[in-house]
Amino acid sequence: MGRRPMGRKRKKRIKRSHPPGTLPGTLVAHAEADAAPVQIFLFSYDTQRCEERVLRPEEIATLSVPENGVLWLDIWGLSDPGVVKSVGDRFGFHPLALEDVLNIPQRPKVDRYENHLLIVLREVRYPEETEQVSLFLSDRLVVTFQERAGDPFDSIRDRLRKGLGKLRSEGADYLTYALCDAVVDSYFPVLEKLGEEVESLEETVISNPTPPILREIRGVKRQLLEVRRAVWPARDAMSELLREDSFLIRPGTRVFLRDCYDHTIQVMDMLETYREMAASLVDEYLSAVSNRMNETMKVLTMIAVIFIPLSFIAGIYGMNFDHQASPFNMPELSWRYGYPLVLIVMAATAGVLIYYFRRKKWL
Amino acid sequence: MGRRPMGRKRKKRIKRSHPPGTLPGTLVAHAEADAAPVQIFLFSYDTQRCEERVLRPEEIATLSVPENGVLWLDIWGLSDPGVVKSVGDRFGFHPLALEDVLNIPQRPKVDRYENHLLIVLREVRYPEETEQVSLFLSDRLVVTFQERAGDPFDSIRDRLRKGLGKLRSEGADYLTYALCDAVVDSYFPVLEKLGEEVESLEETVISNPTPPILREIRGVKRQLLEVRRAVWPARDAMSELLREDSFLIRPGTRVFLRDCYDHTIQVMDMLETYREMAASLVDEYLSAVSNRMNETMKVLTMIAVIFIPLSFIAGIYGMNFDHQASPFNMPELSWRYGYPLVLIVMAATAGVLIYYFRRKKWL
Amino acid sequence: MGRRPMGRKRKKRIKRSHPPGTLPGTLVAHAEADAAPVQIFLFSYDTQRCEERVLRPEEIATLSVPENGVLWLDIWGLSDPGVVKSVGDRFGFHPLALEDVLNIPQRPKVDRYENHLLIVLREVRYPEETEQVSLFLSDRLVVTFQERAGDPFDSIRDRLRKGLGKLRSEGADYLTYALCDAVVDSYFPVLEKLGEEVESLEETVISNPTPPILREIRGVKRQLLEVRRAVWPARDAMSELLREDSFLIRPGTRVFLRDCYDHTIQVMDMLETYREMAASLVDEYLSAVSNRMNETMKVLTMIAVIFIPLSFIAGIYGMNFDHQASPFNMPELSWRYGYPLVLIVMAATAGVLIYYFRRKKWL
Amino acid sequence: MGRRPMGRKRKKRIKRSHPPGTLPGTLVAHAEADAAPVQIFLFSYDTQRCEERVLRPEEIATLSVPENGVLWLDIWGLSDPGVVKSVGDRFGFHPLALEDVLNIPQRPKVDRYENHLLIVLREVRYPEETEQVSLFLSDRLVVTFQERAGDPFDSIRDRLRKGLGKLRSEGADYLTYALCDAVVDSYFPVLEKLGEEVESLEETVISNPTPPILREIRGVKRQLLEVRRAVWPARDAMSELLREDSFLIRPGTRVFLRDCYDHTIQVMDMLETYREMAASLVDEYLSAVSNRMNETMKVLTMIAVIFIPLSFIAGIYGMNFDHQASPFNMPELSWRYGYPLVLIVMAATAGVLIYYFRRKKWL
Amino acid sequence: MGRRPMGRKRKKRIKRSHPPGTLPGTLVAHAEADAAPVQIFLFSYDTQRCEERVLRPEEIATLSVPENGVLWLDIWGLSDPGVVKSVGDRFGFHPLALEDVLNIPQRPKVDRYENHLLIVLREVRYPEETEQVSLFLSDRLVVTFQERAGDPFDSIRDRLRKGLGKLRSEGADYLTYALCDAVVDSYFPVLEKLGEEVESLEETVISNPTPPILREIRGVKRQLLEVRRAVWPARDAMSELLREDSFLIRPGTRVFLRDCYDHTIQVMDMLETYREMAASLVDEYLSAVSNRMNETMKVLTMIAVIFIPLSFIAGIYGMNFDHQASPFNMPELSWRYGYPLVLIVMAATAGVLIYYFRRKKWL
Repeated sequence: MGRRPMGRKRKKRIKRSHPPGTLPGTLVAHAEADAAPVQIFLFSYDTQRCEERVLRPEEIATLSVPENGVLWLDIWGLSDPGVVKSVGDRFGFHPLALEDVLNIPQRPKVDRYENHLLIVLREVRYPEETEQVSLFLSDRLVVTFQERAGDPFDSIRDRLRKGLGKLRSEGADYLTYALCDAVVDSYFPVLEKLGEEVESLEETVISNPTPPILREIRGVKRQLLEVRRAVWPARDAMSELLREDSFLIRPGTRVFLRDCYDHTIQVMDMLETYREMAASLVDEYLSAVSNRMNETMKVLTMIAVIFIPLSFIAGIYGMNFDHQASPFNMPELSWRYGYPLVLIVMAATAGVLIYYFRRKKWL
Repeated sequence: MGRRPMGRKRKKRIKRSHPPGTLPGTLVAHAEADAAPVQIFLFSYDTQRCEERVLRPEEIATLSVPENGVLWLDIWGLSDPGVVKSVGDRFGFHPLALEDVLNIPQRPKVDRYENHLLIVLREVRYPEETEQVSLFLSDRLVVTFQERAGDPFDSIRDRLRKGLGKLRSEGADYLTYALCDAVVDSYFPVLEKLGEEVESLEETVISNPTPPILREIRGVKRQLLEVRRAVWPARDAMSELLREDSFLIRPGTRVFLRDCYDHTIQVMDMLETYREMAASLVDEYLSAVSNRMNETMKVLTMIAVIFIPLSFIAGIYGMNFDHQASPFNMPELSWRYGYPLVLIVMAATAGVLIYYFRRKKWL
Repeated sequence: MGRRPMGRKRKKRIKRSHPPGTLPGTLVAHAEADAAPVQIFLFSYDTQRCEERVLRPEEIATLSVPENGVLWLDIWGLSDPGVVKSVGDRFGFHPLALEDVLNIPQRPKVDRYENHLLIVLREVRYPEETEQVSLFLSDRLVVTFQERAGDPFDSIRDRLRKGLGKLRSEGADYLTYALCDAVVDSYFPVLEKLGEEVESLEETVISNPTPPILREIRGVKRQLLEVRRAVWPARDAMSELLREDSFLIRPGTRVFLRDCYDHTIQVMDMLETYREMAASLVDEYLSAVSNRMNETMKVLTMIAVIFIPLSFIAGIYGMNFDHQASPFNMPELSWRYGYPLVLIVMAATAGVLIYYFRRKKWL
Repeated sequence: MGRRPMGRKRKKRIKRSHPPGTLPGTLVAHAEADAAPVQIFLFSYDTQRCEERVLRPEEIATLSVPENGVLWLDIWGLSDPGVVKSVGDRFGFHPLALEDVLNIPQRPKVDRYENHLLIVLREVRYPEETEQVSLFLSDRLVVTFQERAGDPFDSIRDRLRKGLGKLRSEGADYLTYALCDAVVDSYFPVLEKLGEEVESLEETVISNPTPPILREIRGVKRQLLEVRRAVWPARDAMSELLREDSFLIRPGTRVFLRDCYDHTIQVMDMLETYREMAASLVDEYLSAVSNRMNETMKVLTMIAVIFIPLSFIAGIYGMNFDHQASPFNMPELSWRYGYPLVLIVMAATAGVLIYYFRRKKWL
Repeated sequence: MGRRPMGRKRKKRIKRSHPPGTLPGTLVAHAEADAAPVQIFLFSYDTQRCEERVLRPEEIATLSVPENGVLWLDIWGLSDPGVVKSVGDRFGFHPLALEDVLNIPQRPKVDRYENHLLIVLREVRYPEETEQVSLFLSDRLVVTFQERAGDPFDSIRDRLRKGLGKLRSEGADYLTYALCDAVVDSYFPVLEKLGEEVESLEETVISNPTPPILREIRGVKRQLLEVRRAVWPARDAMSELLREDSFLIRPGTRVFLRDCYDHTIQVMDMLETYREMAASLVDEYLSAVSNRMNETMKVLTMIAVIFIPLSFIAGIYGMNFDHQASPFNMPELSWRYGYPLVLIVMAATAGVLIYYFRRKKWL
């Protein structure tokens, strides 16, 4: 992930992998997918035990689901469509569902097939790129596909290993809830970071409104937009999952899914607050810039205005009226204190103008 | 509450206490919760009597709900998760519900569990911080959790003690209504205060539009936004409560809940009016600032423009044409009244320009 | 009503009378209610006859509803909660409904109680204050509470007295319709007045855009907002009344209620048109102001620019090069027509500039 | 129709004819209705024949509906309420429906009465005034009321006369569809004209942004708003008509009504596009004006700035330092080529400044 | 397609072909339809075989639908209404549906007739004009009408010819899905191109904000608006198709239609992102222009302000006070180093001003 995240991400995220006219259900690796080899982690657990190991792709075809437990396949990397295909073949997942796994980015959603559900969510890991998490829920089986290594599931793995909470004693639907909740919970720290950026921009906008800030604001707004594109449909997906009356989700798990749905709404709330703040930042920037500009223009114009009458006075006494031809022609020029007097008059004029400007609060 | 409310509040309010990956149902004190010790107040009443006392945490486990009356536990402070846990254990509240009590801030909502309801509301006490009120309604039982000491329930306690109204003769659902209504009613004075601020800003914006006012406007807008974040979901919660067909709410109480729902709508109405007024304040500020700026620029430019022709005249008579070489070369210079005449011409020019500007209403 | 309507109204309208924590169903006079004594008018009519008289408060308790006719109590003034209470006691109205009568302002609404309906509407009488009309519809009974003397019901009273139309031969529901329709119809002349104000502002904004106009626009916008706050919920109330399947409203009356509902929609239509026009007024004001400003600046700058080159020419011939030291040093100064020539050059320069500006349409 | 359409129309359109408090069902001519005498055209047709004649008002009372055909009364002009009344009496139309015919303008709508439907539409004939078309559909009967002579129904009359299409073989509902469709279709040419105006304004706004254009834009926006007020409710009316399960509309006709409904949606689409274009015109105008202003200011300021250093140079050599008192005092004044040199320096300064401005793209 | 697409397209797209009052179901060629001759391609296939040939118009009347396969008629060009009519006659399509084929542009929609569906979509081929695709789905039959040659169906034809995927083994509904999906998929590359334009404009707006860019922005915004007009109703159409419980669409095909619906939502997402970006481009342009203008004004004013005090100093020493008449009268003029001193003072003044401006960040 050494590349600059923002520029590239935007371009990549927005592109679908398949050219138009591709056969539906075609499984090909995404053109810009990470080339890193696929890693497969198996968790097979029930109340008593928890087996955890790394799987070779060839083993998928012969996997079996534990009688009274749950099997969780966690697959990192989408560079090998063969893995996706063999998972699909082994567990009977629908070709269109498998295509959605590879054809990133999908909009977060819940798709119901005859005997399995596909839940697509989007993990947000700022400043890294966002990542698609595709989760299959079937009978005693959960399969997750992730684009890259690194995820927010470590605490779940820990709970599985150590038998914390009721994760091991509940079924695949509870694991599904736990995974979804982990994805949703990971939005909070990202939002907090973005929120801090918005707040720091708020201060900078007033103290030092320069054009680069506008670009930073635009950057944050885009980040927030991207989070929004991940969260808004996730909320719908969670709401749908909550109402889904599939046999795969037991009533007891619904109360937990509602909790997860509540979290998405809280995220939306925070998000909209930050978006509103970011939107008003632009106005404040423009207002601050124009304030500054006005300030500048005012001071400059003032200087000009003060000197104009002074120059006018100097101009008068630069006229060449012949003071010898007539006593009315600028007799001041040969007064003893003519010059000092004029200087005093000039200083007084300047003083009066400055005082006037100050009283009018223009200075 | 001696600290500056606004800055801190915003930062705190927006943070969730649990780090991502926390076990669901984990009960830990909120990181920024007040450390003040938890206080527990018990009201146990029926039509005839009303017992009121302070409870020690150890007593919770052995509490019993009165046969024909209502038990109200009012708990102040969230610093001790043990209290929340023992309340939950004693009365069989769902772990997720208990988590919502501690994991502030929650969005106002109504969550229905098998034999109890959780109602989350947000108390707004401007300029103090807002505070979460979590209310459990179960059979003959109401439990309220508040973040801090201080609440709008004093009149309810009084009515319980003195047996005013029909509070003591009605059930737990009526107490629930009374408590919700008290929270909602407490929005009105806050809104009135904010409304007065908006109105005073309205006058200042026109009489003295300086940058600090923009910041004050932003402050009020944020306060209104915060109230909105409390009220909007509260309205939905009340509406849901109204339609809830739980056995916990008797039909006779619904008409009161509808009244409470009406109040939330009235709050929304006031709120939106103030928000609209506050939003237009920014426009008015900008318009006032630019008016003022224009005013300034106009006067300044005018001064400049008046002196420019005068300086030009002075410049002409500062030319060194040799009036001895030709009778056409500035004979004015040696006229008897040349200089006074020029001064008169200048004064006339200035006068004409000023008159012209006045007639054009530029001055 | 001799007081200035706008300032006071806004403050009053937005305040609820009850302090938070008031016992629900408490009947106290609104703090800012008119202190004028309550007046009670009784209409008791059937197809044959129509009795009309003024009632003393004591008589309420012993009132009886006519067997085959309709009783209409029309009560003006809310200064005496005792009257409201005795009406409620006599006819069995719900305490919350009675509270809504006194606790002004209520949002227009229809509340259904066991055997009566409460319809709250808001009468708009520009430039006087708006006023709440609370209407109880029960079996053969209509009770209306109004804040003050003066209402749009005179034509209804007339129709009752003279037996015009089918008002006397229809039931209480038809009277309810007639009263609601009278309230809704009274919005039209108010809107027409406001519309005329908007249109006259539209012309002033272009011919004479001064800051006070902005304030007038704001005033009209607020008036429109107030009407909107009266009409929008009234529309919902009418729509609800239309769909209400209470035994109190006979099918034959529904077609009339639909007509009344249609009127509220027409009011909304007009209102939104005026609001849109008023909103664009601000933009036009700002555009006109800046146009005017630009105009000013342009002319002023032009004057400055024309004189600058002229002053420059004068400045050149004010240089003191020694034309005796060299034949190249400003020989013009001693030419016979040097001075007139320079004046001509100056005039030409000014002419050319003016011509150029005119052609560029800057002048 | 020789009067200026826009000004008068707006004022008239927005006024309702009845003063508040009018008896419901009162039939009076609209105060501003055209005074032209009412014209009544009768079409009585079935598959075989089509009778067409002008009817005298007295004949209405004795009209009979053909056994197996359709009777279409087309009435032009609303100046005589007696005609409306006798039509209502003859065919049993509801008084409120008849009132809607006279009390223009009504919002487009469909009102269902016991055995007839009232369809109100608004004909748009730019630049003439819009006109209300009220259509009664009853058993084998269609009655249309129009405000004035002139309508888009000529092609329908032609089809009736010549027996084109299946109009004569279908029932009254099909005629209703045909009439509604004709009204809706007549929106298209109006919109096209308005669209052309918007497009021509778009070009003018950039080439010649003067204040009158703003007024023209406002005019077009208002026209579009007026069409919108006709079309938007017409769409709802059509949609309602489509879903209406009255015996008056046979299933086979529904597919045609859906087509008509589609047309209203297409009109809305066009309309919203034009409205969006017109809205952005104002922004473009303001941007063009300010561009132009900036342009002006830039050139003017530039001229000023170029001359300022030149004047400064001239000012230096206008100083009266005594070059005989010291060899350091302005010896240039007595150089042989002093003056030409200074002129050259001035020209060079001006050249450099102009070059600099050009390179900075300010010129 | 050699003509300039944008200007002409907008004008054409928005015009309906039929003049108001046209007989419903009238089939006439669109006035601006391409005059190119109609081409008809037949695909008749089942699992085993696939017949593909060009059809002459006369053959349509005698066509038969294969027993166990699917017949796909693909018709290019709308210049001959006779072809549309004979297709309609042969397969019993409703006249209104046929009219929609010819009367372009129709809004994308799904219309259900007794035994066939009409699906109207809009193909977007930037920078060429958009094109209407009308698809009839009947029992074992699909007929597509396209405005011109060129479509995104080549890969489907290929799959039919080579028997790739399950296209040949599924029914007419699956072919319908494949065609719709091909149209929807073709939006992606167009959007990507427009997205690239938006992004390149984003850079240009900051580096070189000139008026033509505003026009380019407007162009892109309009393109996006046009795509939106194609996609938004297409989404509704797909959603309707998904919920359509016609016997023509088998349950197994629904999951594919849902996929297609998902794609339209993805397109909407991308579209709205680009639209938001394009909308903010205008603001950025205006901000960049005003920044640039401010920049210019600032530098220019600064130059002016620096020279004004200098000119004032020069003006002072241009005064003609008689230094022989008094020792106080400008003795500097005859100092030995008077002139150099004044020059130094001037340079110092300029330096101080420049330093001051730099420190204030105005320079």
